[in-house]
Amino acid sequence: MASPTATLLISCPDQQGLVAKIANFIYANGGNVVHADQHRDEPSELFLSRIEWQLDGFNLKRDLIGAAFDSIAKPLEAKWQLHFSDEVPRVALWVSKQNHCLLDLLWRYQAGEIAAEIPLIISNHETLRSIAEQFNIAFYHIPITKATKAEQEAKQLALLKEHSIDLVVLAKYMQILSPDFIEQFPRVINIHHSFLPAFVGANPYHRAYDRGVKIIGATGHYVTSDLDAGPIIEQDVVHVSHRDQVSDLIRKGKDLERVVLARAVRLHLQNRVLVYGNRTVVFA
Amino acid sequence: MASPTATLLISCPDQQGLVAKIANFIYANGGNVVHADQHRDEPSELFLSRIEWQLDGFNLKRDLIGAAFDSIAKPLEAKWQLHFSDEVPRVALWVSKQNHCLLDLLWRYQAGEIAAEIPLIISNHETLRSIAEQFNIAFYHIPITKATKAEQEAKQLALLKEHSIDLVVLAKYMQILSPDFIEQFPRVINIHHSFLPAFVGANPYHRAYDRGVKIIGATGHYVTSDLDAGPIIEQDVVHVSHRDQVSDLIRKGKDLERVVLARAVRLHLQNRVLVYGNRTVVFA
Amino acid sequence: MASPTATLLISCPDQQGLVAKIANFIYANGGNVVHADQHRDEPSELFLSRIEWQLDGFNLKRDLIGAAFDSIAKPLEAKWQLHFSDEVPRVALWVSKQNHCLLDLLWRYQAGEIAAEIPLIISNHETLRSIAEQFNIAFYHIPITKATKAEQEAKQLALLKEHSIDLVVLAKYMQILSPDFIEQFPRVINIHHSFLPAFVGANPYHRAYDRGVKIIGATGHYVTSDLDAGPIIEQDVVHVSHRDQVSDLIRKGKDLERVVLARAVRLHLQNRVLVYGNRTVVFA
Amino acid sequence: MASPTATLLISCPDQQGLVAKIANFIYANGGNVVHADQHRDEPSELFLSRIEWQLDGFNLKRDLIGAAFDSIAKPLEAKWQLHFSDEVPRVALWVSKQNHCLLDLLWRYQAGEIAAEIPLIISNHETLRSIAEQFNIAFYHIPITKATKAEQEAKQLALLKEHSIDLVVLAKYMQILSPDFIEQFPRVINIHHSFLPAFVGANPYHRAYDRGVKIIGATGHYVTSDLDAGPIIEQDVVHVSHRDQVSDLIRKGKDLERVVLARAVRLHLQNRVLVYGNRTVVFA
Repeated sequence: MASPTATLLISCPDQQGLVAKIANFIYANGGNVVHADQHRDEPSELFLSRIEWQLDGFNLKRDLIGAAFDSIAKPLEAKWQLHFSDEVPRVALWVSKQNHCLLDLLWRYQAGEIAAEIPLIISNHETLRSIAEQFNIAFYHIPITKATKAEQEAKQLALLKEHSIDLVVLAKYMQILSPDFIEQFPRVINIHHSFLPAFVGANPYHRAYDRGVKIIGATGHYVTSDLDAGPIIEQDVVHVSHRDQVSDLIRKGKDLERVVLARAVRLHLQNRVLVYGNRTVVFA
Repeated sequence: MASPTATLLISCPDQQGLVAKIANFIYANGGNVVHADQHRDEPSELFLSRIEWQLDGFNLKRDLIGAAFDSIAKPLEAKWQLHFSDEVPRVALWVSKQNHCLLDLLWRYQAGEIAAEIPLIISNHETLRSIAEQFNIAFYHIPITKATKAEQEAKQLALLKEHSIDLVVLAKYMQILSPDFIEQFPRVINIHHSFLPAFVGANPYHRAYDRGVKIIGATGHYVTSDLDAGPIIEQDVVHVSHRDQVSDLIRKGKDLERVVLARAVRLHLQNRVLVYGNRTVVFA
Repeated sequence: MASPTATLLISCPDQQGLVAKIANFIYANGGNVVHADQHRDEPSELFLSRIEWQLDGFNLKRDLIGAAFDSIAKPLEAKWQLHFSDEVPRVALWVSKQNHCLLDLLWRYQAGEIAAEIPLIISNHETLRSIAEQFNIAFYHIPITKATKAEQEAKQLALLKEHSIDLVVLAKYMQILSPDFIEQFPRVINIHHSFLPAFVGANPYHRAYDRGVKIIGATGHYVTSDLDAGPIIEQDVVHVSHRDQVSDLIRKGKDLERVVLARAVRLHLQNRVLVYGNRTVVFA
Repeated sequence: MASPTATLLISCPDQQGLVAKIANFIYANGGNVVHADQHRDEPSELFLSRIEWQLDGFNLKRDLIGAAFDSIAKPLEAKWQLHFSDEVPRVALWVSKQNHCLLDLLWRYQAGEIAAEIPLIISNHETLRSIAEQFNIAFYHIPITKATKAEQEAKQLALLKEHSIDLVVLAKYMQILSPDFIEQFPRVINIHHSFLPAFVGANPYHRAYDRGVKIIGATGHYVTSDLDAGPIIEQDVVHVSHRDQVSDLIRKGKDLERVVLARAVRLHLQNRVLVYGNRTVVFA
């Protein structure tokens, strides 16, 4: 059995000796680095880093690592996150009526591709309840209208808290989250069915058809209060032709959406994504 | 030596018997069809077709084919174009300062990939004159300012007329053609350095960088009076990452631009592109 | 509701008037062509064609179309197939222990993407029975050993006959069909987990890893008695890097396999694939 | 003006503290790391690393860095290379009759994309001499026959030595280098016109056509004495269809070959490629 690992994601203003300081912190405490990746972003002069080491043989207790590292990080003005590979994050899947992203994520979940617990599914429709039951996952039907949105979001937030959710995945959830929601729970990944920033907003396939594009795309991104403008994690495309009607774009798009969303979720859960400004570093 | 061929590009409201009527016209006159492709566009109920046949053994003289076919086309309200494979179209390349698309097209021209004559290059800068000379192609320096645009476009039009140009290829020509120009000479292909409709307008690579996209693209399209909104012929993309600065996007984009432009030009010159509305059928 | 259509797939030695003869046959009987595509294969001088027309308003009864067309086809030495869009083909899925292709095909089946009936699943293992039950599809466990192969294939053939199966899809069926089987039932599509002809045979991902390739692929092809050498319908690839271990190639490969197999099956079921020699025309 | 940088490429058996030891070596001498990337190869338990730091402010003189680092590397049984960004490598281009890869590399050379000096072109034919002259690069015509191969390779080796060549790029050089040559000059990159290991050997496009593949590829790799079996640096592919004859595969392949070769050369010249066994790590 492989040793569990700790992963630090770090961003700070670049300066001399950062790699050495971080590596020394781990080495001095007996840790063996298994992966390390550094990037200097030129325009912002930011140093961005991901470093992962084995916990077996590491001399610091887990609950002391953060405080110990903070004494290094503070003088560097560094922001950092610390994750342990055996502390499995908890994910809520949010859906509406379409099942392709949900089924795909649950298949990957069963196949062991997604290192997470999925304790609940939330939907504004009853449509997909049977899938939740089939996978023995709690299903909450929380319909949304303009009038009820605020109170329903409160219910949603309560559920996330109750189930200790770390990440919300919008797997074709066809509602817009309020800025207030995002402020309270900012760890949300969405799949947008276009090659953002083309066709921001509603009905991207119809608009792609009308524009006569020869390629369609899908985008996995973090949700911010600015619609479809959050940091992009992953994008991919597929070629289309004049033979493809809107229904064909939708069909081909489904294949794209599920793969792009799954990749974005997997990268996030492996702590490979670091947001800075409205951009991401993907240590892949 | 292969027989020269004739190619008809036809669009008309769909109705029964169109394929038979067109095929019979060719067969009755002794023609052998080498390629035929039909498409029915559902939303518009348009029939769009490309049919190519050998001229050897065809009983109609070339200059009579159009009139003969028109008697079939008129009752069908069909728009059509007729091209002969041995009547080589004449192309003008328009450039500014960047050489990658120009060099690429000229390399393909030399390699026999582009079935056209290229008698002239027009530029608003002197920068690329030496390339024109190296390939023995006439080079016209026509600088453009806001004040002189109208008179300079008149000069350009005169040159196109003088050289019997069939197609203008904007191979990184960084000026916008006036609606008036387009009306007088509508057969213009442009390469836009983004995945349209994302980043319409100026500086798409800078804006792609700012948005943090994971893919950049290029678009070959016909020019209309509506900037960057003309019918799309060809698009392609390349993946980028956080490691790519704006200069890397520009470098990677060049590879894309020259290939996408060359494909669009080649498809047009093989009479494989049929415009309807703001869309294209590409019989490829 | 759209009219049902008839589709002819035709191959014959090229000669003058083929398009006209075929189109006239349809037009003379009152048919409206909705799609038509012709290809002349240069090396073999074969004419290959797919033509689809609406049956509403067509004057020939269905059971007479074949005989009527045969009088045209015979003098042309044409091979042809006739399909009706509302006569739904019957497909058997064959699997072993891996579920990703099976689940994917069944999801597409439910989503209406696959125009077929799937009355049975055959497997040499019990592993996937629960999936069959969940989708209410008969599941036959037919284990294979070297000693029992002949008699078990007889059972399989009997099942195909009993269920009037038109197409067998090997959705990760990890057994080789005997030449005898293929002779008796030649309509079999397989997914091979490599970019054929690279890594013909067993363990392609391990061998891809050993070779240090930067791209892996998958191939959907018809099965012939010559292992992994049948006509290719569809191929696709995905980039890999030094970070990908064999287990990553297998994981990434699954995404590829299910998409490539689904596309190959869909193309076949839409009668878009015409085999000639060891090659295919895909009218897509 | 950016500071020149030093880059270390290191491979050694993995053990604790490697990242710290290497980073400390740089930090202790006043260097600022701009890029660092580590990879642990599981099957071989090798640690592979690329680390690049600014020389401005670095306290060790260039000619002392190697010896100083060696005292760290030796106990680790590490193999390492040291490169300085302002010591421009010298590249020889070898060609036969086809010009597309040569022209492409020379265009990139002029555009500043290839950080190298190209002092000479060697060819077994006179065909491309005029291109060499146009770019003011020395051209050596060294014809090869079976009988003269050994002595001609001696001439080639002498030229490489005389011009202090660091890298040979076979830009469509259609001769096989002898094992003896490779032993004496092992830094050779080749472009193979197939998706290796498919179609190893001669005439890959003809064989791809015969096999009826739906995708063709190109491979940039280091040359070893085992033909077409050297470590792969870069691969890419393009889709083809039944419409593509062998001549189309060749034409489409050219676009692929020049891009894949250019990428492989660029990665090598940026010291991003580390060979271990018959595999490469590409720190890109």
